[in-house]
Amino acid sequence: MDSHQLPRRLGCFFINNIKNMKSIIAIVSDFGDDFAVAQLVGVIKKINHEAEVVILANDISPFNIGEGAFVLAEGSKYFPQGTIFVGVIDPGVGTSRRSLVLETDSGWYVGPDNGLFTLIIKDQRIKRVTVIHEDKINETRTATFHGRDVFAHVAAKLSLGQNQNDWGASIQIGELNQLKFRDNEIIYFDCYGNAKINQNCDRFSFGDKLKISCKSKSIEVIFGKTFGDVTVGDFVAYKGSNNCLELAINQDSVREKLGLRLGQILQIDKE
Amino acid sequence: MDSHQLPRRLGCFFINNIKNMKSIIAIVSDFGDDFAVAQLVGVIKKINHEAEVVILANDISPFNIGEGAFVLAEGSKYFPQGTIFVGVIDPGVGTSRRSLVLETDSGWYVGPDNGLFTLIIKDQRIKRVTVIHEDKINETRTATFHGRDVFAHVAAKLSLGQNQNDWGASIQIGELNQLKFRDNEIIYFDCYGNAKINQNCDRFSFGDKLKISCKSKSIEVIFGKTFGDVTVGDFVAYKGSNNCLELAINQDSVREKLGLRLGQILQIDKE
Amino acid sequence: MDSHQLPRRLGCFFINNIKNMKSIIAIVSDFGDDFAVAQLVGVIKKINHEAEVVILANDISPFNIGEGAFVLAEGSKYFPQGTIFVGVIDPGVGTSRRSLVLETDSGWYVGPDNGLFTLIIKDQRIKRVTVIHEDKINETRTATFHGRDVFAHVAAKLSLGQNQNDWGASIQIGELNQLKFRDNEIIYFDCYGNAKINQNCDRFSFGDKLKISCKSKSIEVIFGKTFGDVTVGDFVAYKGSNNCLELAINQDSVREKLGLRLGQILQIDKE
Repeated sequence: MDSHQLPRRLGCFFINNIKNMKSIIAIVSDFGDDFAVAQLVGVIKKINHEAEVVILANDISPFNIGEGAFVLAEGSKYFPQGTIFVGVIDPGVGTSRRSLVLETDSGWYVGPDNGLFTLIIKDQRIKRVTVIHEDKINETRTATFHGRDVFAHVAAKLSLGQNQNDWGASIQIGELNQLKFRDNEIIYFDCYGNAKINQNCDRFSFGDKLKISCKSKSIEVIFGKTFGDVTVGDFVAYKGSNNCLELAINQDSVREKLGLRLGQILQIDKE
Repeated sequence: MDSHQLPRRLGCFFINNIKNMKSIIAIVSDFGDDFAVAQLVGVIKKINHEAEVVILANDISPFNIGEGAFVLAEGSKYFPQGTIFVGVIDPGVGTSRRSLVLETDSGWYVGPDNGLFTLIIKDQRIKRVTVIHEDKINETRTATFHGRDVFAHVAAKLSLGQNQNDWGASIQIGELNQLKFRDNEIIYFDCYGNAKINQNCDRFSFGDKLKISCKSKSIEVIFGKTFGDVTVGDFVAYKGSNNCLELAINQDSVREKLGLRLGQILQIDKE
Repeated sequence: MDSHQLPRRLGCFFINNIKNMKSIIAIVSDFGDDFAVAQLVGVIKKINHEAEVVILANDISPFNIGEGAFVLAEGSKYFPQGTIFVGVIDPGVGTSRRSLVLETDSGWYVGPDNGLFTLIIKDQRIKRVTVIHEDKINETRTATFHGRDVFAHVAAKLSLGQNQNDWGASIQIGELNQLKFRDNEIIYFDCYGNAKINQNCDRFSFGDKLKISCKSKSIEVIFGKTFGDVTVGDFVAYKGSNNCLELAINQDSVREKLGLRLGQILQIDKE
């Protein structure tokens, strides 16, 4: 241990004891209900028995980095300062793609350099970006499961107050891979099949009529405030709970009814 | 803070320290695997870092208040005294439907006034019903996600020992919306497709033959004790783990085999 | 309490206080998203409020003891020493099948005597096998839900340091029911549809060509290290994250593409 790290670690020790606060580690993945995520939990608890692991979401569509980026950015807004987020949508695992830690004003983000942190970089002040030296984390890691064999280790070490310089090197934000989201792109379907759209609602007012088109289909829809503004079975648009435009059917699935899919671009006109 | 609340809060403080007991907040929702529930967890942990959040169930069929009422009532029976339950099956979110806290002999129930607490009212002694003054909880709440923006806040505040009078007003039980469950109605399918039926088993004895009919189909079935009382693939009826009548197929799904659906009324005759 | 247990319990008390370690209870089941698992959590927290419950997996295919055995054995490898595992894939619940506790060098395993512990017995040193006297655990248990009414109670009691002799009797390992896994049997599909195969990789080297056949279909596949060793959409075989042979398609599901199923035997030849 370098002597310059001593104050930092002691600081953590006292903060943890005085505030009696356990670190939260929150995981976003495309693991579904698989026992993959539990293996991360086990690894974390082995390294830091006091860490508290929360599943932010395991239902990201397999390999869909954009959907993961959205859920990570939106979900992390509601967590306490200092939360450590682990993102594992990682189709490039075991290749030359880099493993990262982003330290921001609100917490830490651990995961692959494949665009998963695009919206974190957009939304937050990034204090430091670290490329993980994987051999220093786990020399016996597998080639296909860095969520368990690298990222979980890193998150647990961060929760113990370890210095990223011990096992990583700083790089510039500009060196990171980032995704591009397009205007009016469907970026997420919630559990009810409501579509979250990459569009803010500044130009829409309560009661406006919108024409929303996708491929051959076109619908007219009221811009309301909530589902109950229209009768059951009717379309409604509104500013959703993640502050972007949403399209829904009251008590039904607009995703199924219109056959929408993630990444699709809608045409949206005010009438 | 009103002075009369001081003893109560101090009391909580000492109880929590002496017993070293963390509050449990248990959530029932129709969120599925969505990151919606994690947003509730984040909000709760921000307000009370020591609260322990348990997912009671996220798999309620979308908008199905009756199914939620059953799971909330049956699931909550197994939790420790003092647990705070949050129920979010809330298709009327953002309309004039009221937000409630029910305080019972065993704990607290937070959620919308849409019938979700029907079976809690039937099963438990209700000590107090409070209508939540939503503006006092969260002035910047969205119109479509009160689970996160109202109920999670309320649950976390209750877990800190806050007095409901600070942000709510008492009403009478009789003013609450309640559902009606019908005799022999299918109220739940478990993970195996076994049907839980709104019927007690007092008039059935081990070995009885029952005739169970639904629409055009009719089956004969033995009233047994467990699945293994019949050969694999055969029907069996029994007093289930929630004390009501259940219909199953040994190692198969009666739901799929007979095409049953939630809310369906069965005809059940002893032969 | 027998006097001979006093030192053991006191020992636990001091260990728990000095190390400030909470017991972890990890659950494997075929409950899916049902509120069944939450009932186990409630029961456990009622008995030991300090126990920490982790879901190892709830997505075991209904009644599939072999799949459960694999997940239990592989998942438990990553958990801390002393973890208590509860396995509930239990189609024989309520019959004469026995309820067990296996104490191993690494922790405890609680569940039915139906083969679920086959790979634990193969992988670990078994220190003691106890048949649970169910009446001593819960006289009012149901006949259809021993996960909640027996195993959860036992796990919570173990987490409190209770002696198994209080409610069970030792038997020999040889008396346990065990499953047989066959060479080249598909033992698990992960969340991406990758097939985990009961075959080690000792005879394969990077770059080998394998011919893998199932029923009428036959494919040629490179033995690589990870998904990205082949182009998107191509087959790849590799030593997976559970150390057995895996077959995958880069960013697609080999399960769906080849119509594979659990338990199927593949023919695997090196070309």
